[in-house]
Amino acid sequence: MGILEARIQPLPARRTPLHEVEIGAVLAEDIIASEAVPTFDASTMDGYAVIAADGKMPRRMLGERQAGHTDGRHLAPGECLRIMTGAPLPCGANAVIPVEFTREDQGWMYSDLEPHVGLNIRPAGSDVASGQTVLPIDSALGAAEIGLLAALGVSNPAIYPAPRVAILTTGDELAPQGQVLQPGQIRDSNSYVLAAAIRGAGAQARRVARIADTRAALRAALLEAVQDADLVISTGGVSMGTHDLVKPVLEELGTVHFGRVAVKPGLPLTFATVSGTPVIGLPGNPVSTLVGFEMEIRPVLRAMAHRRARWRPERQVRLAHSIRHEEARLEFQRAHIELIEGTWWARATGSQASSRLLSLVGANALLRIPRGTGDLPEGASVTAVLIDSPEQDVAP
Amino acid sequence: MGILEARIQPLPARRTPLHEVEIGAVLAEDIIASEAVPTFDASTMDGYAVIAADGKMPRRMLGERQAGHTDGRHLAPGECLRIMTGAPLPCGANAVIPVEFTREDQGWMYSDLEPHVGLNIRPAGSDVASGQTVLPIDSALGAAEIGLLAALGVSNPAIYPAPRVAILTTGDELAPQGQVLQPGQIRDSNSYVLAAAIRGAGAQARRVARIADTRAALRAALLEAVQDADLVISTGGVSMGTHDLVKPVLEELGTVHFGRVAVKPGLPLTFATVSGTPVIGLPGNPVSTLVGFEMEIRPVLRAMAHRRARWRPERQVRLAHSIRHEEARLEFQRAHIELIEGTWWARATGSQASSRLLSLVGANALLRIPRGTGDLPEGASVTAVLIDSPEQDVAP
Repeated sequence: MGILEARIQPLPARRTPLHEVEIGAVLAEDIIASEAVPTFDASTMDGYAVIAADGKMPRRMLGERQAGHTDGRHLAPGECLRIMTGAPLPCGANAVIPVEFTREDQGWMYSDLEPHVGLNIRPAGSDVASGQTVLPIDSALGAAEIGLLAALGVSNPAIYPAPRVAILTTGDELAPQGQVLQPGQIRDSNSYVLAAAIRGAGAQARRVARIADTRAALRAALLEAVQDADLVISTGGVSMGTHDLVKPVLEELGTVHFGRVAVKPGLPLTFATVSGTPVIGLPGNPVSTLVGFEMEIRPVLRAMAHRRARWRPERQVRLAHSIRHEEARLEFQRAHIELIEGTWWARATGSQASSRLLSLVGANALLRIPRGTGDLPEGASVTAVLIDSPEQDVAP
Repeated sequence: MGILEARIQPLPARRTPLHEVEIGAVLAEDIIASEAVPTFDASTMDGYAVIAADGKMPRRMLGERQAGHTDGRHLAPGECLRIMTGAPLPCGANAVIPVEFTREDQGWMYSDLEPHVGLNIRPAGSDVASGQTVLPIDSALGAAEIGLLAALGVSNPAIYPAPRVAILTTGDELAPQGQVLQPGQIRDSNSYVLAAAIRGAGAQARRVARIADTRAALRAALLEAVQDADLVISTGGVSMGTHDLVKPVLEELGTVHFGRVAVKPGLPLTFATVSGTPVIGLPGNPVSTLVGFEMEIRPVLRAMAHRRARWRPERQVRLAHSIRHEEARLEFQRAHIELIEGTWWARATGSQASSRLLSLVGANALLRIPRGTGDLPEGASVTAVLIDSPEQDVAP
């Protein structure tokens, strides 16, 4: 699987401000702590910093220390310092008695608690030691890992960036949103479908929608798009008509590596390079666009960003009804799968016409029907590729 | 579960430009097609629009029609029109012969194919009929559903918006990124942890980091934050110290509903309302912050956005080693769970000190150890709450 993956290079690492690092991004460097966390012995409670060996004896109060504040103060035997959670221990102190076990009166602190050395202290370096490798290269970053980088002062980590994808939809028939349809027009839906799917794959999408069917318009749009994109996806204009311009214009501007991959829906897929930027031409039908994206482009985007989970999980399922299939083609049928008494059953989501976005509504799987397979009876076992379903937008 | 959920209202619907609608957003209206898709009979192939009853006879070519273009032309018996994929059929035509089955010569088209009525035609309304309810209220939107809205010209759907969350981190001890630590200082990591976790929950995060420990600073920051946030989360300043300001300032500015929920880590949780905006105070320790967010705030954010999957999935697991637990507290221990020969085993991720973000690195579950349970032996069965792991950033 993945005819494009071998031909498109992963992106180079980029230093990225920490507040822009997204969940799921992958580290491009080992993170070695250049400072300890914490850098000082800190109190973990509101209470009194004391010398443990003083036991239960009343202690003379020197004053108070809040978190973030310090001074040169030393604690001598018989002395204590009121201290807040997170504040640094004064020199000489080796325990903290929590405030709820104390009484303060006239500059003296009384407690029945006999502290042991280290009580309620978070020692310097106890969370992270200086020099420790806290995250190795290729670690995927979640909220905790991003927080750890912040705690260590790694404000510009080297990560693999999210690919920037430009979306070109082509066709004189495409009408913009917010305008009455003229005879023969349809609305541009592909740029919306792709933008949502691209963001769902962890990449960035920019819509350059509705390029007119002229060589000049397409050439200008492509040359502009490749400037600041890591990948360009075009839809439409790749079938056999005399006015299909994408392939000839790509041949003029760059190198066309191949076209016409036999997957239904998604028959004619074109792949080219223009000024070093990969360009993928998808058909104009919205279902072809989304299935083509799922099967061929999403894994590429994940590989470009060095992500671990490149492929959708798969599962063997049984057909709840017979389906028709042309032997000559690999096909992906849209389906809803459901676990019933220990068996996963698949039901196709209505007419599989490749224009029909409704066939993807409610689908949580694509059934892979291989080339060489004919019609399939009810109960037949097929492979289901599990796609995102907005109903299941949480981790497994 | 969810002491906050009952007290925080779901957000009202908002019309949102389609290109800003995020995957997972929930519809706040039925979507009824106000126009058919397509609005006209369209060719599904590049070829020739013909009259089926003409059979195999040679046909006189009237000219050509591209997608998006039309005219008043009528087809009479014996005539044909060259037509591109997606172009509207001329009046009178009722079939399309694909170009690969034809030959054109001197203004005449020849074909051995005998077309049937409807061949290669996508009839008006065949994808969506006008008046059809295509998506009911409360549907969750994925890429296909967003594309369907685009195809129907629904450019400003009513959806439930993503909550806007302001993050206030408080404490004189917090140092910014990119600055050498002064004695007693630690780096602000909570605002990064929370921003990533909030975005991971499908909400918007704004960091208002490092508010100094003075009443005036906190008051000003809170009053500013509640202006344009649906929820404010503060960290730090909620324990028992004399300098803990969050609760008194919240009492001054609004209504404090409760504080001090006995969950470890995450002991003192404060909940208030200021100018109608809910404010949640979390402790200053980063692990408390993230676990408190996971257990109490994430479900609230999902409920505010009317999302379906509010709670993390859970699973019964067995302990790979004994663990210690204070009977008096509900506790969430960070763990990595793994399926070994049919059984899920859990292993705690090192020291469970609540400052130690490293204990969340590599964790894919929180073990819920209920109040009233003491130490647990190896092999004991416990409930694991499955949290996002950046290694698993795809749907199940």
